[in-house]
Amino acid sequence: MATIAEKPVIMDETSIHPPQRLLFGPGPSQVHPRVYQALAQPIVGHLDAYFFQISSDIQRMLRKVFGTTNDLTFVISATGSGGMETAISNFVTPGMKVVSFANGFFCDRQSEMARRQGAELVRFEKPWGEVFGDEEAAEFIRREKPKVVMYVQAETSAGAFQRGEAICKAAHEVGALVIADCVTSLGAMPVEVDRTGIDIAYSCTQKGLSCPPGLSPITVSPRAAEWLKARETPNRSWYFDLKLIADYLTVSHRYHHTASATMFYGLHEALTLIEEEGLENRWRRHQQAHLQFVKQVEGLGLEMLVTPQHRIWNLNTPKVPQGVDDAKVRATLLNDHGIEIAGGFGQLAGKIFRIGVMGPLATKEHVDEFVKAFGAALRGAGYKS
Amino acid sequence: MATIAEKPVIMDETSIHPPQRLLFGPGPSQVHPRVYQALAQPIVGHLDAYFFQISSDIQRMLRKVFGTTNDLTFVISATGSGGMETAISNFVTPGMKVVSFANGFFCDRQSEMARRQGAELVRFEKPWGEVFGDEEAAEFIRREKPKVVMYVQAETSAGAFQRGEAICKAAHEVGALVIADCVTSLGAMPVEVDRTGIDIAYSCTQKGLSCPPGLSPITVSPRAAEWLKARETPNRSWYFDLKLIADYLTVSHRYHHTASATMFYGLHEALTLIEEEGLENRWRRHQQAHLQFVKQVEGLGLEMLVTPQHRIWNLNTPKVPQGVDDAKVRATLLNDHGIEIAGGFGQLAGKIFRIGVMGPLATKEHVDEFVKAFGAALRGAGYKS
Repeated sequence: MATIAEKPVIMDETSIHPPQRLLFGPGPSQVHPRVYQALAQPIVGHLDAYFFQISSDIQRMLRKVFGTTNDLTFVISATGSGGMETAISNFVTPGMKVVSFANGFFCDRQSEMARRQGAELVRFEKPWGEVFGDEEAAEFIRREKPKVVMYVQAETSAGAFQRGEAICKAAHEVGALVIADCVTSLGAMPVEVDRTGIDIAYSCTQKGLSCPPGLSPITVSPRAAEWLKARETPNRSWYFDLKLIADYLTVSHRYHHTASATMFYGLHEALTLIEEEGLENRWRRHQQAHLQFVKQVEGLGLEMLVTPQHRIWNLNTPKVPQGVDDAKVRATLLNDHGIEIAGGFGQLAGKIFRIGVMGPLATKEHVDEFVKAFGAALRGAGYKS
Repeated sequence: MATIAEKPVIMDETSIHPPQRLLFGPGPSQVHPRVYQALAQPIVGHLDAYFFQISSDIQRMLRKVFGTTNDLTFVISATGSGGMETAISNFVTPGMKVVSFANGFFCDRQSEMARRQGAELVRFEKPWGEVFGDEEAAEFIRREKPKVVMYVQAETSAGAFQRGEAICKAAHEVGALVIADCVTSLGAMPVEVDRTGIDIAYSCTQKGLSCPPGLSPITVSPRAAEWLKARETPNRSWYFDLKLIADYLTVSHRYHHTASATMFYGLHEALTLIEEEGLENRWRRHQQAHLQFVKQVEGLGLEMLVTPQHRIWNLNTPKVPQGVDDAKVRATLLNDHGIEIAGGFGQLAGKIFRIGVMGPLATKEHVDEFVKAFGAALRGAGYKS
């Protein structure tokens, strides 16, 4: 039978001719060539022993980047927002009291999903870009006594990193589970699920892990797994039912859905690259690129939205200088330099730039080149530093 | 800035070394090399003009394979089962009367999802492998007067193709919408959404379209779109909310989730290959490969489960001959020939083989080679024809 597959194949040109982009936006981030190579490897079936080997490797490597020993650590076959829905639909039930710490767009998305699950939602709101202090967060939880607490560790809409130790401690005191959005931080900053006390953390493949989008890593603490086991009503969502997915990916390998070998290959390669670099080296590289970025944009006269100790390393949010049209700056970068960045939205529309420095682009050289192009684009939009 | 991306890159070996497989199972199916090439092209952002161009091309090409002029024709960022959940969660509300034509595993999955949405479910059951006659189906609908009718056009668990004209006509008479699962048929057989009268059809990328799994094509009739517009309660699922997804992919390009350029590239290439071959030529090729397959396995003395006029062209279900251990046959094919096929499950466990002949493998030469290996594996498992 080997004769069939070994027949020479003419590698015609594909119909895909993407423009050359340098992805300095909040995500997706630049992808390493080895990940592209992995994506082009021949698929196997979703129940093939090789697929489960790749899936098992991914689980092992994900535990390291999440900073956890949780058994239930694997990937959902959907993008990061699908991971959010998995977390919320499995652990929030109708009538359940849920506290949402709300300081950005993705906190609002958490709230919206919890509302759709029928939660009794209590929101603690802060302006986007600010974070919650340990005392005020703990007091709020102690007063409200919710069953679930949600927060966003790295808010992509604002650039602020929310520490979670005090939130988790207070939540556990009142018997609540904690859901944390780690979409932007995973792979670029310490997420530290176990040390922080997070019960359910989800992320994406396309930011700190520097893989194309398409899957959502998730991890669930033994405590949350126990709660789930005891849950009596079925998740309204069959596709995101963690019990069924866990059974498929970790226990019996019983068929649930047809997972994409292609996407698993890509994630496997991205995580292998992280192992090769060393997780702490990778964090340090992102931190250094971030510090260099801040120094240089402050050198251009720009001000950062978030106070220094609360900044996300891989997602920077300098304010748009007065009188500058941020859309013009973004258009110049894209059209003249092939550089994608993003603007603010919601409360921060027109007020900030959102600039990702992550993955292969988190190096001194790339930051230098970026800031050069950025400075020129700002000046082209009338900025005088 | 061009200097950065143009730097030579060392293309190291990836960590992915899959075994060589010939995918003659029910899916995923063999993938054309040009699709793999497309998957390895550099990504752009999920809001990039190039991404929307690719997405728009996909929508145009999908309308042709679906056989529809529906505006709302695009892809969901999840696998085929995610498409099923999109269809059901958007159009089935708590307390709604839903009729399920149930003659296979994926019909049962539709039922399960409808139950989770709180439907009042009425099932018309048949043994797996049989189909519903026009009269009995229409009578059942007229008697039950449901709001939604669900059926599976091509049941992968059994190999039977369900015609839908009578179902759709009766459903529309009583004012019901029709949801049809076209996961296995799309791209390999005429699906004919508009001619049949289907309101919501969903599929996958990894069978008849011969692309890796990861996305789910869906199409929604104007009638169903009107119903959805008037729906007052939000879909419990935010991720699968068709209003939000349609807004992102077709109307305002307003951000919903971070769609995967990679997966869109692959699907674009797979659909381009279909356009190049010609849709009717492709159907004919699958039909001919199917007829040849049936002739040859009948020549081996095997019997097909499904009567000739109701067979799915690209998914064949010959019965396991008496006294033959089907697991042994499958293991021999996999280990000695690198060929994946599947067995039956549920009602048909141990009773049938499920053999996909689709995509690049739907040719006379591949069928010849397959049946040669299959015959040898059967004899190795004690079969005497």
